Amino acid sequence: VERTVFCVSDHTGVTAEAFAHSLISRFHLVQATYSTRPFVDTVEKVAAVVAEIDAVPGARPIVFSTFSDSDLQDELVRSTALVIGLFDESVDRVSIELGLAPTPGMGRHHTIGDAALYELRLDAVDFALITDDGLGIEHYGRADLVLVGVSRVGKTPTCLYLSMQYGIRAANYPISAEDHAGSGLPPVLEPHRDRLFGLTIEARRLQAIRMQRRPDSPYASLDVCRRELAHAERLFQTEGIPYIDSTTRSIEEITATIIGEAGLTRRLS
Amino acid sequence: VERTVFCVSDHTGVTAEAFAHSLISRFHLVQATYSTRPFVDTVEKVAAVVAEIDAVPGARPIVFSTFSDSDLQDELVRSTALVIGLFDESVDRVSIELGLAPTPGMGRHHTIGDAALYELRLDAVDFALITDDGLGIEHYGRADLVLVGVSRVGKTPTCLYLSMQYGIRAANYPISAEDHAGSGLPPVLEPHRDRLFGLTIEARRLQAIRMQRRPDSPYASLDVCRRELAHAERLFQTEGIPYIDSTTRSIEEITATIIGEAGLTRRLS
Repeated sequence: VERTVFCVSDHTGVTAEAFAHSLISRFHLVQATYSTRPFVDTVEKVAAVVAEIDAVPGARPIVFSTFSDSDLQDELVRSTALVIGLFDESVDRVSIELGLAPTPGMGRHHTIGDAALYELRLDAVDFALITDDGLGIEHYGRADLVLVGVSRVGKTPTCLYLSMQYGIRAANYPISAEDHAGSGLPPVLEPHRDRLFGLTIEARRLQAIRMQRRPDSPYASLDVCRRELAHAERLFQTEGIPYIDSTTRSIEEITATIIGEAGLTRRLS
Repeated sequence: VERTVFCVSDHTGVTAEAFAHSLISRFHLVQATYSTRPFVDTVEKVAAVVAEIDAVPGARPIVFSTFSDSDLQDELVRSTALVIGLFDESVDRVSIELGLAPTPGMGRHHTIGDAALYELRLDAVDFALITDDGLGIEHYGRADLVLVGVSRVGKTPTCLYLSMQYGIRAANYPISAEDHAGSGLPPVLEPHRDRLFGLTIEARRLQAIRMQRRPDSPYASLDVCRRELAHAERLFQTEGIPYIDSTTRSIEEITATIIGEAGLTRRLS
């Protein structure tokens, strides 16, 4: 079953996209083609999007919308498509619960946040960059978390996502081939023991990822991957470092799991 | 008005969080305290969260939930809180529209994606890192976008967000003090002219950001900020480079605007 799905918003459309993907993914027979129309913030712009939606050939599209203004939603529902306004019913329920009417025009700019939050987020992204891959150990005193694991296990994107989405300062340190000789924790990590968290992955998956980067190198051989992973997991176990397997998890899932298991506090939101 | 807001999910809770923030931000008198409970994927775990929610003193909490299984939602609504199931009504409407029942258990793991998508995303994050701040110009042939602007205007987080959220390969190149003598495009950018996009910001905001990094340096003086920004904006205008002002925009807003104005194709979703 093929369908076109539109996400329409007077803001970025990110909320509508997350919702649409989540909902449509429950219908596994559906092959959806997604289109987002952000910053649709006048009745004229909505009318243009309606014309575009109604011109899609075949089965009518499914439209998810987030508008902060009911005039815009009123215009959108003129479309012949199935239009699902994400906030339609919920705003009323929350309004009754709070005994407050929604503030006109509010909500449109909710992600701007104030300057302090913006700086906190930038600071966390900067931190992830200057402490990536074993760099900037002198900054570990400010770290909320130090992620450890073998090369290409997913440390960098996890740290970047933690910083971007939650304002958490996450460093990462590679368990490298050179550490394999010694046993025990690399000495530079010793003072930060309580902030360590490990990441591991299945050897075949790691091999596939490494092959993308350096095809047919010893680095990407299954044997090397297996040995490095075995060493890292042994280290996690003997040193009592909590760890998770990233094999079948998305970055969002890895991140949410680490926040829960390490008891981290989100700085944003 | 103070309220506790819970986001409960059998997955990461990211969709519920985005929805909750968006909705609650419409009530500007509300001071909300947010708590997320991800991976609540058994009836027993839901019961524990219900106990926690019902133990919150004062006004009853508002709860936003995304469950892929109606048994979990049935347990959650035993709470005395106001419970808003994001998918409750919408799933039924989409189901009728498609003439399909939702696939049991689907949707829970929607963000894992397949290995190809995961690699595409990692590749884009890698690309942003190796081409950050004027590095890796030899890779520009693979770039979807080259973001240009003065130091600390927000290029790096924008490129990282583009890669992480959309799988777009974005490089960034600083318009540095050394370029100020010359006029015209830096020669290395000439072959990539059609992929350039500019970022600017108000001088006072830039000064505040730079002060965080290097307090009281000439780099953070209002005068230097003004001159650098004037130079960069003149360059954008004379060279016909599209650009936007990041002053009052979040990274999500900057990103969504650039995607629209530059006509970029999202690789994820």
